[in-house]
Amino acid sequence: MNVQLHGRHPLVDQIVEGIKQQIDERHLRPGGRVPSIRGFAETHKVSRFTVVEAYDRLVALGYLESRRGSGFYATSRRNGEAALKDEERPRTADLVWLIRRLLTQRDGVALAGAPWIPSDWLDEAGMRRALRALSREKQILDFGDPRGHAPLRSQLELMLAELDIPVSSSQILLTEGTSQALDLIMRRLLRPGDTALVDDPGYYNLFGNLRQHGVRLAGVPRGPDGPDTATLERLARQHQPKVYFTQSVMQNPTGTAMSPHVAFRVLQIAERCGFMVVEDDVCCDLDGPGPRLATLDRLNRVIYVRSFSKTLAGSLRVGFIACRGDLAAELLDLKMLTSITSSQLAERLVHAALVDGHYRKSLTRLRERIRLARERAVLALERAGMELFVEPKAGMFLWARFGHIDDSLPLAEEALAEGVMLAPGTVFRPGLEPSPWMRFNVAMCEDPRLRALLERIASRA
Amino acid sequence: MNVQLHGRHPLVDQIVEGIKQQIDERHLRPGGRVPSIRGFAETHKVSRFTVVEAYDRLVALGYLESRRGSGFYATSRRNGEAALKDEERPRTADLVWLIRRLLTQRDGVALAGAPWIPSDWLDEAGMRRALRALSREKQILDFGDPRGHAPLRSQLELMLAELDIPVSSSQILLTEGTSQALDLIMRRLLRPGDTALVDDPGYYNLFGNLRQHGVRLAGVPRGPDGPDTATLERLARQHQPKVYFTQSVMQNPTGTAMSPHVAFRVLQIAERCGFMVVEDDVCCDLDGPGPRLATLDRLNRVIYVRSFSKTLAGSLRVGFIACRGDLAAELLDLKMLTSITSSQLAERLVHAALVDGHYRKSLTRLRERIRLARERAVLALERAGMELFVEPKAGMFLWARFGHIDDSLPLAEEALAEGVMLAPGTVFRPGLEPSPWMRFNVAMCEDPRLRALLERIASRA
Repeated sequence: MNVQLHGRHPLVDQIVEGIKQQIDERHLRPGGRVPSIRGFAETHKVSRFTVVEAYDRLVALGYLESRRGSGFYATSRRNGEAALKDEERPRTADLVWLIRRLLTQRDGVALAGAPWIPSDWLDEAGMRRALRALSREKQILDFGDPRGHAPLRSQLELMLAELDIPVSSSQILLTEGTSQALDLIMRRLLRPGDTALVDDPGYYNLFGNLRQHGVRLAGVPRGPDGPDTATLERLARQHQPKVYFTQSVMQNPTGTAMSPHVAFRVLQIAERCGFMVVEDDVCCDLDGPGPRLATLDRLNRVIYVRSFSKTLAGSLRVGFIACRGDLAAELLDLKMLTSITSSQLAERLVHAALVDGHYRKSLTRLRERIRLARERAVLALERAGMELFVEPKAGMFLWARFGHIDDSLPLAEEALAEGVMLAPGTVFRPGLEPSPWMRFNVAMCEDPRLRALLERIASRA
Repeated sequence: MNVQLHGRHPLVDQIVEGIKQQIDERHLRPGGRVPSIRGFAETHKVSRFTVVEAYDRLVALGYLESRRGSGFYATSRRNGEAALKDEERPRTADLVWLIRRLLTQRDGVALAGAPWIPSDWLDEAGMRRALRALSREKQILDFGDPRGHAPLRSQLELMLAELDIPVSSSQILLTEGTSQALDLIMRRLLRPGDTALVDDPGYYNLFGNLRQHGVRLAGVPRGPDGPDTATLERLARQHQPKVYFTQSVMQNPTGTAMSPHVAFRVLQIAERCGFMVVEDDVCCDLDGPGPRLATLDRLNRVIYVRSFSKTLAGSLRVGFIACRGDLAAELLDLKMLTSITSSQLAERLVHAALVDGHYRKSLTRLRERIRLARERAVLALERAGMELFVEPKAGMFLWARFGHIDDSLPLAEEALAEGVMLAPGTVFRPGLEPSPWMRFNVAMCEDPRLRALLERIASRA
């Protein structure tokens, strides 16, 4: 705990405010222990009486609780607050704790586990052009069509045709990133107590949101060729799920792609057991056109989801759903009810960027740069004695482990203290089970601190 | 029903596709009747056999069902779809039906009931400047801080200080419009089966989303001075709600403001009965600074919500929550889990627009323009023999009724056929109960079609 004492206010106030802030901003977690009175007094060179008074006030405010003989702890619930959402809450709290660390602890940290492409690899000049182009367009202030900006939906129709996924633009619903897309789908198709099938390992934000909805997760083990279809079928028969959330290619975190045979089997099982398949193709533009589940199924049982956060800009929050027309109409209703509409300005920016002649060229450059980075990162991890789950053919993720380590979470904690953010495997597991694996972002693997860290860990084997 | 037959495809295909589209896009509602075979054949000048074949195929596809002796109807559920979300669904379906009409039926319609200010009343030149300014900024591609763009949060801190609501920027969470703000709050504080207090009449999107969450609504009647506090207290004791959602000033739809005494009583009851008050101040910038619930309470029991959709642009989708620090931290967790982050680009645009010296001037102009429009609209409605609920001192809404009409919904249906969109009172009621009242947008009341319509209705008295 790091409380700064140097203000003009009384010392007790400073301590109270400092600890309140630590708790509010979750540097100190609910249930976490604060230093002993003596310890705090010595560290901060203040009298014990001052600390006693501050801790007493924090107890009165509901921030701390004292446990007899054991010291003071941050309370897990504040007064006047609603009851816990569900029994899964503590586990979800751990997850958001980790997500928050990913998103907020950035400055000067080597983000080897981060899920985004560095901004300076993207086409910032293109975005500047799009902004200037938009500044000359008309009617830029309106709410716009709740289905999303019509010219962008038409453009997406063309882009999906390239993947051999024929749709009409009325089957496309624009959303605020894939997050809102997945959120609308789970709100429409799932209710509390339902079980959903997910990839194990898979996408942690999805898992967290599903749990928040009271949905139970059944994890389908992901192998080098895609999900283990025997387990998929067994779980489907056991739980009668309505939905299986998956990624066919460039899967997060493993980087694996479904083989055509596995994709076919998945759809066969979906048909037989009567569930829908949500295909999250968020990394799509990092690879050339190629078959997806939606290509085989033509949006009968597949709901296709994608965004532009990876290849245009994370700052846009524009994604979309392509699905059956009747379901698209229902999801539109839900979108209007919960968010009225998505940002027409952001959608116009995406449209301007996509129709700009430079987009395809910039994608080609980006893919090549990622390919080279992937090759270098593979070599670096192997040189450090790590085992790769697969050597992916596309995308930005590598999934790797040390043979002598059973749980990578302590490793990630240790690394963070040295300025390197790793993504421990446990975060990607439906039940946050321990895992030896870690996700690496190939674009972030050049940092010498990472290399040094990996070598040191390898030397402990 | 309006099916166009003029394509190059076989007639049966054209009919099938046309009716599918009508159903998918909800021009034909679930349970709605399609024309009889003979009727359709005569209208479209095709043979009855063709229609029979098309209807049969639509039945096979699950789009239509035939009821013996009664004809063909759009099915209320499609095959393979999930079960209905809850027993409230039909009612919610009616609501989204109306919202959709508000949002999508725009071209050439006089939008007297619409909730937005016409774009040409807003500062489009200012937005163009903001876009150009943004095109010169750095790091415009990043996801950004999940709490929202820090300079904008600092700016909001200053703006809230003008309302005498002291906050630190760590208490401010940026959201995608007030919609996401309200959504996060209900997800955090309410669970299915809970009862929430709301204003009657009040904000329909809020009601729809609450119902979608499985939350029951208890309506507190809104009087000229604010909510009826005796009923508020009775309902609070009866239902033990965790939250009361309200608007203190420029309430949607009545245009009323809470008197200081009523505001004080509301907070007293909240304290006594232990619920939080969510104050939606979405129209804030349409009026000068003045006391809000949050001014009295200083964000102890009040959660303050606002956006820039009304005064900057509906196309931005930027709003915020200001609340207690510990709750802000919890809502941030939920935001990261469900949407990762909001659009940093949109937030930078808002920041650029707010710090531009023209914003205050443009607000002054806008307020004056709305004041004049309000005065004219009041005169026009009174001249047509309508009764006003109150004559509001600020804001864009008037709430009015004809003495001889009990339910304004049929009136709104009639008006739409004549190119005038009215907002019937039933939409604003927690249980969609009938209402004689209608909401008028003062900025949209100049249209001669509206004037003519009102005069004709008045003449029927």
